[in-house]
Amino acid sequence: MAQVGFIGLGNMGGPMAINLVKAGHQVKVFDLSDQAIASVVEQGAIAVNSANDVALNADFIITMLPAGKHVAGLYLGENGLLSVVNQDTLMIDSSTIDAATARLVAQAAQDQGISFIDAPVSGGVGGAVAGSLSFICGGEAAHFEQAKTVLDDMGKNIFHAGSVGAGQVAKICNNMLLSILMAGTSEALQMGIDNGLDPKVLSEIMLKSSGKNWCLELYNPVPGVMESVPSSNNYQGGFMVDLMLKDLGLAAEAAQQSKSSTPLGSLARSMYAMHSRHGAGGDDFSSIIKVFSPKK
Amino acid sequence: MAQVGFIGLGNMGGPMAINLVKAGHQVKVFDLSDQAIASVVEQGAIAVNSANDVALNADFIITMLPAGKHVAGLYLGENGLLSVVNQDTLMIDSSTIDAATARLVAQAAQDQGISFIDAPVSGGVGGAVAGSLSFICGGEAAHFEQAKTVLDDMGKNIFHAGSVGAGQVAKICNNMLLSILMAGTSEALQMGIDNGLDPKVLSEIMLKSSGKNWCLELYNPVPGVMESVPSSNNYQGGFMVDLMLKDLGLAAEAAQQSKSSTPLGSLARSMYAMHSRHGAGGDDFSSIIKVFSPKK
Amino acid sequence: MAQVGFIGLGNMGGPMAINLVKAGHQVKVFDLSDQAIASVVEQGAIAVNSANDVALNADFIITMLPAGKHVAGLYLGENGLLSVVNQDTLMIDSSTIDAATARLVAQAAQDQGISFIDAPVSGGVGGAVAGSLSFICGGEAAHFEQAKTVLDDMGKNIFHAGSVGAGQVAKICNNMLLSILMAGTSEALQMGIDNGLDPKVLSEIMLKSSGKNWCLELYNPVPGVMESVPSSNNYQGGFMVDLMLKDLGLAAEAAQQSKSSTPLGSLARSMYAMHSRHGAGGDDFSSIIKVFSPKK
Amino acid sequence: MAQVGFIGLGNMGGPMAINLVKAGHQVKVFDLSDQAIASVVEQGAIAVNSANDVALNADFIITMLPAGKHVAGLYLGENGLLSVVNQDTLMIDSSTIDAATARLVAQAAQDQGISFIDAPVSGGVGGAVAGSLSFICGGEAAHFEQAKTVLDDMGKNIFHAGSVGAGQVAKICNNMLLSILMAGTSEALQMGIDNGLDPKVLSEIMLKSSGKNWCLELYNPVPGVMESVPSSNNYQGGFMVDLMLKDLGLAAEAAQQSKSSTPLGSLARSMYAMHSRHGAGGDDFSSIIKVFSPKK
Repeated sequence: MAQVGFIGLGNMGGPMAINLVKAGHQVKVFDLSDQAIASVVEQGAIAVNSANDVALNADFIITMLPAGKHVAGLYLGENGLLSVVNQDTLMIDSSTIDAATARLVAQAAQDQGISFIDAPVSGGVGGAVAGSLSFICGGEAAHFEQAKTVLDDMGKNIFHAGSVGAGQVAKICNNMLLSILMAGTSEALQMGIDNGLDPKVLSEIMLKSSGKNWCLELYNPVPGVMESVPSSNNYQGGFMVDLMLKDLGLAAEAAQQSKSSTPLGSLARSMYAMHSRHGAGGDDFSSIIKVFSPKK
Repeated sequence: MAQVGFIGLGNMGGPMAINLVKAGHQVKVFDLSDQAIASVVEQGAIAVNSANDVALNADFIITMLPAGKHVAGLYLGENGLLSVVNQDTLMIDSSTIDAATARLVAQAAQDQGISFIDAPVSGGVGGAVAGSLSFICGGEAAHFEQAKTVLDDMGKNIFHAGSVGAGQVAKICNNMLLSILMAGTSEALQMGIDNGLDPKVLSEIMLKSSGKNWCLELYNPVPGVMESVPSSNNYQGGFMVDLMLKDLGLAAEAAQQSKSSTPLGSLARSMYAMHSRHGAGGDDFSSIIKVFSPKK
Repeated sequence: MAQVGFIGLGNMGGPMAINLVKAGHQVKVFDLSDQAIASVVEQGAIAVNSANDVALNADFIITMLPAGKHVAGLYLGENGLLSVVNQDTLMIDSSTIDAATARLVAQAAQDQGISFIDAPVSGGVGGAVAGSLSFICGGEAAHFEQAKTVLDDMGKNIFHAGSVGAGQVAKICNNMLLSILMAGTSEALQMGIDNGLDPKVLSEIMLKSSGKNWCLELYNPVPGVMESVPSSNNYQGGFMVDLMLKDLGLAAEAAQQSKSSTPLGSLARSMYAMHSRHGAGGDDFSSIIKVFSPKK
Repeated sequence: MAQVGFIGLGNMGGPMAINLVKAGHQVKVFDLSDQAIASVVEQGAIAVNSANDVALNADFIITMLPAGKHVAGLYLGENGLLSVVNQDTLMIDSSTIDAATARLVAQAAQDQGISFIDAPVSGGVGGAVAGSLSFICGGEAAHFEQAKTVLDDMGKNIFHAGSVGAGQVAKICNNMLLSILMAGTSEALQMGIDNGLDPKVLSEIMLKSSGKNWCLELYNPVPGVMESVPSSNNYQGGFMVDLMLKDLGLAAEAAQQSKSSTPLGSLARSMYAMHSRHGAGGDDFSSIIKVFSPKK
């Protein structure tokens, strides 16, 4: 049993903190929303009065925030989290943020002798509740091993991508590729439909051929081909277009900084931006197939 | 044991015909190249003097030609193959051609009461030799069942995609998607490398995550990540850039005729065209990653 | 004054034939639609009973048809136009068709010693009525000079692009570039708007800078920036999305045959296809900016 | 005659400062490179010992730095330029930087009651030397008018794009569009060449048609079509690929922040990134046509 501080109790952070409580850890929590705190305290977490108060005697501090600016704002500055944490604590940032901020925060931690890993997650709200998230971690091997103590209670696949910042990079590489798989699968299926094929039959053929990919296997974008996926539920639930757009923005930033050429990923970003602007920001990301299909 | 006529004994057709011989069928063959005929006759096939001579008493006629114009030239016209075939014969065109020609030929066959299916293959020369090809068939269900008698001796996965022409459509949908998977996987891996990640580690993570796809599973484009794939053999062997470019041209034609929107597939085509023009036409298609990576 | 045969009296061909009449030529006309014939005869043209009847004693035969298959159907075959034309006649095909059919027809003409040029137009219905079309011609220099006798009466800019077929190629190169200019100008203007700029001010700046192009100069896609352009008239009038889509399909075919890499042109095609499918096929092509702008 | 402080005397800043001296202004200069200072002092500028020393009694301070981080570093912080400037001075930042930093600096200036405009330039080193730059300014109308006093001595077109930050936005919109024009013109010309057209003839036709744009008019990318452009000088001189790549990175950032969809601009960025990686970073940006043409 560990002493865990947890900051950021939103749709993802809330259920993650609750899973830690259920696993027997002592969890001190903070969020700007009283309501968010209340729903976690109800399950056995302990509320404290400020972000910095979670740090006292913590073996681990886990942060789960919306964007790089929030992470920088929390960790850095004269009264930032890094100013109150002691050196026995391992800090784990599970926010999905830009690699530059991740490295900035990590450097600041290191300068003060504080242990830190970046550990962005994938798996969505469903995975957070079920405790089946994937964590993609960047940091020293020893810290990674140590972090597993708590990450195992919130997730199923815990990956070590490399040194600090590598978790963020690996996650956005994966999600950029995912957006390409989904858009590409959608346009291939739609071209088949346009030429008279049954999408179910075409999906089965491609799934057993070299077109095989995660989307065909688990997340078919055509309504009715698979049960229990967002496309068969009017594109509700799942992973929202606007969240994919956020990740593709982080990918664009990374590509710019490393001067990488990412034509398909950039194109996917523009298509998700277009799709969001036309009103689909809150729908599941497999709804991108609507961009290719005739208007009903 | 069936009487089979086989026309077109190139890199693919040759080994396919040989597999039929080995399976015990009587195989009459024709090709414009005497050398191609000789190497198949050596294995037990029977040479005839013209394309039309394979038709005599044939249960099946299989054709394996480079492009739509060759297929139209062979089947149609006053002295075309359709003019000599009898009505008990099932004609199987395994060439990869444009859907419009496939439908034209099929229509001509049907008008004369001749049974016909299109059955393009995937799996390359290796698959042709090993008898492990995939056949993606379009035609009536009864013809499809009948065709299996011989297709099973040359392939492993025999798919029924729909009515006549559907085999061609399904194949190019699959191969268009494959080109997107390969280009997308390549740019994601290269962006990871550009940001300091180990491509082997990143590949493992994405393979267990939502970036999973056929290329990561069986055909990693980064040299050294997998053994026995073209990327680890200087991009030799495998599926040539120029063949992928041909299939993407067929996809572009299909998209044009059905007025489909295929932004990623079209972009992949332009990148393979570029790659071919810069000298890589004869390399394996996974070499597309060179387009993204810094010049060595 | 010349004897002119004119086949194809649609939205474009009708006013073109009338301009020839007005210029004093004797014009024999044919179309499959009686109504189309009537409206031209009313202006002084002479109706004949069949396409081939226009050929009698003609100095020039001009054809203006929707697509390559119509042109091939009219010119070729046992009773095609080429079988009745005499050798003093210069044939001018002003249809916009694929380069392959243009070359096929030209070759057939040449084999029979008949003079032929391809001369696709740009300028739209407005230009056809006003006699201000551009003709982009392919053929021998002598034929080009000869053709000017009549082309000058229907158009303003008469270009000689090269040998037979070159007119079609030059036209689709131009229109592919135009689609890129329009889509590119639209996304640049929209990005400016998204960042708080006034599109009128931004347009003026770019028009005087290196972003200068035909769309900014004459055809601004943002409503209200220019008067008397389709964008200020709810995108009515002008050059329809579906006609641009047709030309981009011809460009895709040409690129495929010459193995050219055309990433931006292909992308523009996919975006126009998408835009058409979502219901904008009949709107002016500058409405592509709606793809980039937030849904109203 | 005005008192001008000038910071940043690189390839652009150096000749700009010299033009101010020639126009009769008193110009105090600073740069981190002694050599850069020397070459400007030689022409009559006055060297000072630190960046902040240019501020004394200055009517105008002009800064010309490589990137946002340099501008932020110079202006902000406890001892930044803003801490020493007096309220009669108008600050003009001519660096091309991200819009976010431009707004940050402007806000800081405003908070201290200091006048500030952003005024990025286009026209390259040639324009800087000739005094024919374009300045695209963002700021209050009164400041814009005041700035013209000195901008007119360094440039020919002085634009007012809107409020502070608008200069940066307008410049990157223009340069994103320029990259699309150049890449699009290049692929259209190459497709023409691939189909047997003479690029000179095709250029002339498109220049008089709807494909008309700045690149065809002044900067043809095909060697030999125009004299005195980089393409006819082995792509030396002009505007370097890596500088275009920098501007396209700023455009990507702006698009991300405003959630704009910029498919063609993003694609152009990836192609310039690819081109740079393959060794062309130092060549003129019209060399992008090499990406489309067969390898020599």
